[in-house]
Amino acid sequence: MAEALKVGVAGLGTVGASVVRVLCEKANSLACQCGRSIKVVAVSARDKGRDRGIDLSNIRWFDSPVEMAAFDEIDVFVELIGGELDIVYTAVKSALEAGHHVVTANKALLARYGVELAIIAEQKGVFLHFEAAVAGGIPVVKAMRESLVSNHISRIYGILNGTCNYILTRMFTEGFSFKDCLADAQRLGYAEADPTFDIEGNDTAHKLALLTSLAFGTAISLDDVYVEGIHNISQIDIRAADELGYRIKLLGVALKTDSGIEQRVHPTMVPTSSMIAQINGVTNALSIQSDLLGELLFSGPGAGGMATASAVIGDLADIAKARSGFHYAPVLRRPALELAPHKKARISHHAGGYFIRLNVHDRAGVFAAVARHMADNHISLESIVQRPFIENQIEKTIILITHETTEVNVRQALAEIEKDGHLVAKSQFIRIERMAEN
Amino acid sequence: MAEALKVGVAGLGTVGASVVRVLCEKANSLACQCGRSIKVVAVSARDKGRDRGIDLSNIRWFDSPVEMAAFDEIDVFVELIGGELDIVYTAVKSALEAGHHVVTANKALLARYGVELAIIAEQKGVFLHFEAAVAGGIPVVKAMRESLVSNHISRIYGILNGTCNYILTRMFTEGFSFKDCLADAQRLGYAEADPTFDIEGNDTAHKLALLTSLAFGTAISLDDVYVEGIHNISQIDIRAADELGYRIKLLGVALKTDSGIEQRVHPTMVPTSSMIAQINGVTNALSIQSDLLGELLFSGPGAGGMATASAVIGDLADIAKARSGFHYAPVLRRPALELAPHKKARISHHAGGYFIRLNVHDRAGVFAAVARHMADNHISLESIVQRPFIENQIEKTIILITHETTEVNVRQALAEIEKDGHLVAKSQFIRIERMAEN
Repeated sequence: MAEALKVGVAGLGTVGASVVRVLCEKANSLACQCGRSIKVVAVSARDKGRDRGIDLSNIRWFDSPVEMAAFDEIDVFVELIGGELDIVYTAVKSALEAGHHVVTANKALLARYGVELAIIAEQKGVFLHFEAAVAGGIPVVKAMRESLVSNHISRIYGILNGTCNYILTRMFTEGFSFKDCLADAQRLGYAEADPTFDIEGNDTAHKLALLTSLAFGTAISLDDVYVEGIHNISQIDIRAADELGYRIKLLGVALKTDSGIEQRVHPTMVPTSSMIAQINGVTNALSIQSDLLGELLFSGPGAGGMATASAVIGDLADIAKARSGFHYAPVLRRPALELAPHKKARISHHAGGYFIRLNVHDRAGVFAAVARHMADNHISLESIVQRPFIENQIEKTIILITHETTEVNVRQALAEIEKDGHLVAKSQFIRIERMAEN
Repeated sequence: MAEALKVGVAGLGTVGASVVRVLCEKANSLACQCGRSIKVVAVSARDKGRDRGIDLSNIRWFDSPVEMAAFDEIDVFVELIGGELDIVYTAVKSALEAGHHVVTANKALLARYGVELAIIAEQKGVFLHFEAAVAGGIPVVKAMRESLVSNHISRIYGILNGTCNYILTRMFTEGFSFKDCLADAQRLGYAEADPTFDIEGNDTAHKLALLTSLAFGTAISLDDVYVEGIHNISQIDIRAADELGYRIKLLGVALKTDSGIEQRVHPTMVPTSSMIAQINGVTNALSIQSDLLGELLFSGPGAGGMATASAVIGDLADIAKARSGFHYAPVLRRPALELAPHKKARISHHAGGYFIRLNVHDRAGVFAAVARHMADNHISLESIVQRPFIENQIEKTIILITHETTEVNVRQALAEIEKDGHLVAKSQFIRIERMAEN
C-alpha cells in the first residue's frame, strides 16, 4: 500500500473534531477505498486543554494555523476554523504556497478570496477542494465541477440555509410567527444566538456566489448578490401563498440573462407541486438546469458536524487517490486565470411574476386606484384575492399575483400606491420563481 | 496544453452519436476544463453508410468493436453498443487487457461481468467508469464511489426506469389502464416496441445490482434480485392507494438486514408526502441512506441520448484530468478483489407493511373469515377500506393496510383466504416502503 496521506486539521470545533473522529473510526474502510491511509498528523486550535472526545496523542499540536501551514510533514491542510477571516486567509495562502493541498469548508473565505487562492493552487499544482463550503453533505460542487463538464448551465436555484428553511417550514406547519419560530430554532440549536448571518440571507449569498462561478465560469462576485432576508415574512403571506398554490422558501438563484448574471437571495414563491416546495426543515436542496440534462435536483443535509465531515473526507479521499506529481484540477471548474469577469444584471431588470400584499384602508375607491396604478405600469394580474385576513373592520388585505413583469414596474406601481395614502402598512412583494414542469 | 485524450467510440446509435456530437460541439469548453482536448479518433458500428448527422471524416472506422479494442492509438474505449453481450464482453475485456481505459453505459454487461472486468481494470491500472449505466444523467455512481467514502450506507431506493414511472404517473393522473398507458408510452418513444425488459422490472434490477455493490461493498449479484413488474397494477390499486395516502412507484430497493442483503424490485407504496412520490414522468431518482448524512436524494433524467452523453463525457473528463501513470481507482468503490461475497436475504423474510386488495363475493361472513386468517397469521391491520370500487352488485373490494409483518405471513394468510373460496379474482398485495420523515 502507498504511503499514508498526512493531514493537518486547523480548527477543532464540531466539524474539525468530527473529521478527526471519523478518520480514526473508519480508517480501515477509507484505506481500502483510497489505497492508502489518511492520517491526521497535526492539528491546530486555540485551547489545547479542552476535551473534544478525540484522542490527540501522537498528533503534533500547533497553537497557530499559520504555523501549521508551514509544517512540512503534512500533505493536506484542512481548514475548518471559520470566522477570523484574516488569519484563515493567511494560513490557507501559506499552505498553498508551501505546496500543500487544501480542503476547506469556509464559504466566507472563498467568496472573498476564492479566485486568488485558486490561482495559487493551480500554479502550485495542488488541490483546493471545498465541497463542505456549499451545501454541507450534498455533493454539488463535485457534480458541477466533474459530472456536468459537458453541460451549459442556464440557471441554478436552491435552499442553501437550513436555519431559514426550518423557520419557514415551522411558520407554515404550525402557524407561528417568524419571531416564535426563530426562538424555537435557537432552542433546538438550528439557529445561532446571533442569527443575523443566516436569516438576513448572507450565508445563502456566500454559497450562491461560489455556485455561480462554478455554473457560469465567471469570477466569484459576492458583492453583486442581491440579498433579502426572511424577517419580513408574515403569517398572512404564508397563508395567502398556500391558498394560491405556493410555498415561500428562501432561495438562492443565479441565472444568465441578456444583461448579465442575476444572483439573488430572497424569499421566493415556489409552486406547491414543485420538488423544491417539498424540502422541509433543515434540509438543503439545489436544482441545476442545463442543456443536456434539463433539471437535476439534489437534496440532503446542509449542515451539522457529521454531514460536513462527510464532505471534507470525500475531498480528502480524492486527494488520496490522486497519485501523480502534477494534478490538473481547476478549483472553480475552469482554470482560475480564465474565469470571465462577472457581469451583473441589475435587480431592477429582473423579469418575473410577483406576489404583492397591500394592507389598505377599507374605503371606496381603493381597489380601483390600485388597479389603475398596476395598469399604468403595464402590470397585468393573474389572481386577485381581497379578504379581511386580519380581524379588523377598518382595513383590508389585497393580494395580487402578477403575470411576468419587471421589478422596476412593480416598485414604481407600489410607490404610486403608497403616495395615494391608501396603505395602512408598508406594502409587501415576493418574487415568484418559475419551475420546470414536474 | 497536454496531449489530447484519444477516444474510440464503439456503437453509434442515439447515445454514441450524441457523445461524438457533444465532444465536437463543446471541444473548446471541455479542453479548458480538462487541460487537454478529448478527441474521437476511432469509431466502430455496423453500418458505415448510415447518416448519423455527425462528421466522421478523419476518424478511423472499425467494423468490429473487438478490432477497435486492439487499436493502439486510443487511450479510452467507450462502449455504447448495448445488446450483443458476447461481443461487448469480448471487446471491453480486450480493451482493458490492451491497457485502455473503458467508459461504458452498459448495465447488462456490468451486472454480469462487472467484478471480473473490474479486477482486470485494477490490475492494469486503468479506469473502468460507468456513470451512464445506472441513472442516466444523474451522477449517482460518482457520488457513491467518491463523495460518500466515509459513509456507512444502510439502504438505497430509487426510481430507476423512466418507462415504468411514466406509465404509473399517467395511470394516476389520467385514470387510464396499464395497457393504454403503455401504448401511449410506446407512441411517445418512452417505451420500446418490446417493453418487457422495462415493465417486468429487469432494467431496474440490473441497475440496482450495480448500486448494491457500490453501497455495501459486495460482489454484484443480479440473480439475487427479487423482481416483480408493474403489469398487475390496476386503477383500483392506484385509487385506493391515493385514498390511503400512498402513491405506487416501481422501486429498486437494497438494504442490509440481519439475514443478508435484500435486493428487491417491485411496485411499492410510498407515502404521498415523500419526495420519491413527487418524481413524475420519465424522471429517475435515487435515495441513499447513510450514517453521516441521513438521507441524500438525487433526481434527474434517467435516459435519453443527451443525458447519457453527459454522463459518458463526465467519465471521460475524469480520465482526461488524471495524468499519472498509475491510477488508484477501484471500479466498484472498493478494490474488486476485496468485495465481500453477496449474502442474499430471502424475500420471504422481508419485514414491512403491506397493501392487500381482495375482490370477494358480496356475502355474509366473508370479512370475518378474512379477519380471522389475518389474525391467525399474526398480521395486525392499520387500515381497512371496504367499498364497491367496481360497479357490480355481486362482488366487493376489501383493501387492507397491515402493520409491519413478514412476507411469509402475508403469503400464508392469502393462501388460506384463497382456499376458502371467497375470492372472485386473484388477491393483490403491494409492499409498503417506510420513508424517513420529511
